[in-house]
Amino acid sequence: MLSKSQIKLITSLKQKKYRQQHGFFVVEGIKTITELLQSDLELYKLYTTKSFNIDAKDEELISDSDLNRISFLITPNKALAIFKIPKSKPIDNSGLIVVLDAIRDPGNLGTIIRLCDWFGVKELVCSKQTVDCFNPKVIQATMGSITRVNITYIDLVSFLKASDLNVFGAFMDGENIYSKKLPKDGILVMGNEANGISKNIEDLILEKVSIPRFGELQATESLNVATATAILLSEFRR
Amino acid sequence: MLSKSQIKLITSLKQKKYRQQHGFFVVEGIKTITELLQSDLELYKLYTTKSFNIDAKDEELISDSDLNRISFLITPNKALAIFKIPKSKPIDNSGLIVVLDAIRDPGNLGTIIRLCDWFGVKELVCSKQTVDCFNPKVIQATMGSITRVNITYIDLVSFLKASDLNVFGAFMDGENIYSKKLPKDGILVMGNEANGISKNIEDLILEKVSIPRFGELQATESLNVATATAILLSEFRR
Repeated sequence: MLSKSQIKLITSLKQKKYRQQHGFFVVEGIKTITELLQSDLELYKLYTTKSFNIDAKDEELISDSDLNRISFLITPNKALAIFKIPKSKPIDNSGLIVVLDAIRDPGNLGTIIRLCDWFGVKELVCSKQTVDCFNPKVIQATMGSITRVNITYIDLVSFLKASDLNVFGAFMDGENIYSKKLPKDGILVMGNEANGISKNIEDLILEKVSIPRFGELQATESLNVATATAILLSEFRR
Repeated sequence: MLSKSQIKLITSLKQKKYRQQHGFFVVEGIKTITELLQSDLELYKLYTTKSFNIDAKDEELISDSDLNRISFLITPNKALAIFKIPKSKPIDNSGLIVVLDAIRDPGNLGTIIRLCDWFGVKELVCSKQTVDCFNPKVIQATMGSITRVNITYIDLVSFLKASDLNVFGAFMDGENIYSKKLPKDGILVMGNEANGISKNIEDLILEKVSIPRFGELQATESLNVATATAILLSEFRR
């Protein structure tokens, strides 16, 4: 049986303000929780309808109706865990780095984190206007990748000015990515869903790149930022 | 002022059963509606808070609160239109064709339709288990691309057996897509989000392809089907 204060704590973690205040975030679903339990992340409490066979003090067996009360999902998925938000690690300014300028959609951020993991991108650097990576919708979309990508929220202008790496940015009118020779190391900047890369960041970009369109003239005017990131990372790595 | 029967008709169109019964689907937002008005699609009725300056009999000015009552969106977007579901055109069995085997997520289907449009893929062939392309969430995600891609729901086994094109399929253990010589024409089969390509379809696939993973051993086990489609279409077209 869950106490009122437990329910209050858990539901408060939907909001960034309370995640930051308590230093906790929520993960749901047996598969993702199992993956996170095997990582460096520190578990605070696991609420589950079926035992995970972990230390009893960390786990509380609850009923389906209790899970329904605390779950953020329309269809709750057997377990909900609270993990501690890890301390951020310093950015390793080498290799291929993805930079996000004000990505707002949690699904897009989650997909991009998963893409970074797939393509061996260790550093994801986000502007402070980018959606919080501990947002429950982001966590659901990452499928555990969040433990393998170092995500930092920082002022992008200072970060880009301080880096020695070549800075590439995705634009509608950049050079054809398919005909460019791409380096192994570099920074790839992706812009906001509606407005693209902001002007003060654009000034710091050395190479503007584009994915050419193959459809007719009236074809779709842009690709979704997550699918564009998929194609560009694939070009850097292939 | 909307009548009860108007409200009932519109809200019923959330469900595939009623879309098929009435032959209508719903589109929301000024931008997508404007794009669809310029296409071959036939408008049945436009409900809007601001005139589009079209034939008065097709347009009904409504209040924000009326829009709130009929909108499928959490944040209604100034206008809602009902269009007639177009008659399906025969499949042109040439060029590059994308085949979907039981894609269930509306966002994924919407993104894939937009990708087909971007990469000049004119034919999207779906198994009958694939989510309906006139589902409002699919329509929102396509951003108007739905008018430029011919989408057909059909028995995939018969379709693949009858086609002369080379059939490629996305698998976890296929050949590295980056080292394959890809034809200009062909069929690319993408499988279900959880289970991949079904066994009876797999038997009809000539070439299994994969996107190599560059992360560490424990990296994410798969890519989302929409991002995988983005990368594979990019490889066919580049």
